[in-house]
Amino acid sequence: MRIDTLSTFPDMFSSVMGCSIMKRAQDKGFLEFHAHDLRDWTHDRHRTTDDDPFGGGHGLVMKCEPIFEAYDDLSAVGDHKPYTILLSPTGVPFNDALATELSTKDHMLFICGHYEGIDERVYSLADATISLGDYVLTSGELASMVIIDAVVRKIPGVLGAELGAVDESFCGNLLEYPQYTRPASYRGMDVPAELLSGNHALIAKWRRQQSLERTYRWRPDLLDDADLSADDRRFLQSLEAAE
Amino acid sequence: MRIDTLSTFPDMFSSVMGCSIMKRAQDKGFLEFHAHDLRDWTHDRHRTTDDDPFGGGHGLVMKCEPIFEAYDDLSAVGDHKPYTILLSPTGVPFNDALATELSTKDHMLFICGHYEGIDERVYSLADATISLGDYVLTSGELASMVIIDAVVRKIPGVLGAELGAVDESFCGNLLEYPQYTRPASYRGMDVPAELLSGNHALIAKWRRQQSLERTYRWRPDLLDDADLSADDRRFLQSLEAAE
Repeated sequence: MRIDTLSTFPDMFSSVMGCSIMKRAQDKGFLEFHAHDLRDWTHDRHRTTDDDPFGGGHGLVMKCEPIFEAYDDLSAVGDHKPYTILLSPTGVPFNDALATELSTKDHMLFICGHYEGIDERVYSLADATISLGDYVLTSGELASMVIIDAVVRKIPGVLGAELGAVDESFCGNLLEYPQYTRPASYRGMDVPAELLSGNHALIAKWRRQQSLERTYRWRPDLLDDADLSADDRRFLQSLEAAE
Repeated sequence: MRIDTLSTFPDMFSSVMGCSIMKRAQDKGFLEFHAHDLRDWTHDRHRTTDDDPFGGGHGLVMKCEPIFEAYDDLSAVGDHKPYTILLSPTGVPFNDALATELSTKDHMLFICGHYEGIDERVYSLADATISLGDYVLTSGELASMVIIDAVVRKIPGVLGAELGAVDESFCGNLLEYPQYTRPASYRGMDVPAELLSGNHALIAKWRRQQSLERTYRWRPDLLDDADLSADDRRFLQSLEAAE
């Protein structure tokens, strides 16, 4: 997968993309990453990327010209145009299913705004406009890194054998069961006896029921799309009956 | 505001926290930021922060001991314990209202997991468990930076006079209206005539109706809590009638 980003603070990516899993994905050849400086596509002495909004108002708006010119150049590097993503609170909510879908793209371009708005005409370049959630960030770079992290970890081989426990967070649309490691007792808090029993069937049952109960209590909306067995349904009914 | 983070990749914060608005917030004294290395609270030669899960399974689980010891030390720096945040898909969804609430805290501590799970006992330290959305990140550092960015920008004075247009994204619970800057015509796309009219009342009305229409089409759920005038309600009824 190739990912290009276009922003006015390209250096902001370096420490996140140069650490841990994102670094390993690049070292192992799963990801080719390029952070571009939008100012490289300006033509004035001040390398201007924003300007006053038409119609007045405070704040500045990112100009469309440098972005369109950069898009033209970055579209020319492959056989076809990159799948182009803009982050905006007006976009479709980002979720695990969308991360899975994006993990199959071979070339993506993220156009990152900053705390200003972006000229509306830039949205005509976007294949997808995505919202991280109902909050505002100053940094479109940061918003893009969230998507990049969630997507790149799904490329087969990137996490490899170290595939972690949180991977199961949305498995079958249920929240993850609690995890414990040594010591078995710490500051008066004990690991549940089931996990110390050595009885694999009991452990599997305990974990499943913990997942079901947490989802029932904290995110009941997820249960509508969860894969549930007859046993699961009976357990959920027992939780309902106990209330 | 003071913010401490606790993680195994403290360097990951440097380029985001050292750029743009987050840098300025620190330079101007609005924010004191410390990224701590969890390994500084380990006692073995390998500086171990994770271990196999009780009950079996692949992946590793972050140990509770270094985290509790770090929490003790970081709690001792002020008059009272820091407001402590864990990021987890099982947490309450992060949103603009929560960002506003957190912007009033004087000291926060973010405990960052990585792609593994965290020993469940660590959650007993948390004042809040927050979810960025229904997706999984490898990096708790990145998740924490999103919250930090959304919160710090709300501290009065941080954005200052450069308060940008996107600030209005959730103003009154409506999506932002479209923004444009020069040129008035670009690659066949023209700025709407209303914005070029110089008529302030007409511009204000156009922007309000654009916000209402976008919210109605893309995020009708937000309208339930929106501040709407009688004119707004009439406009929304006209949209409904036109369908």
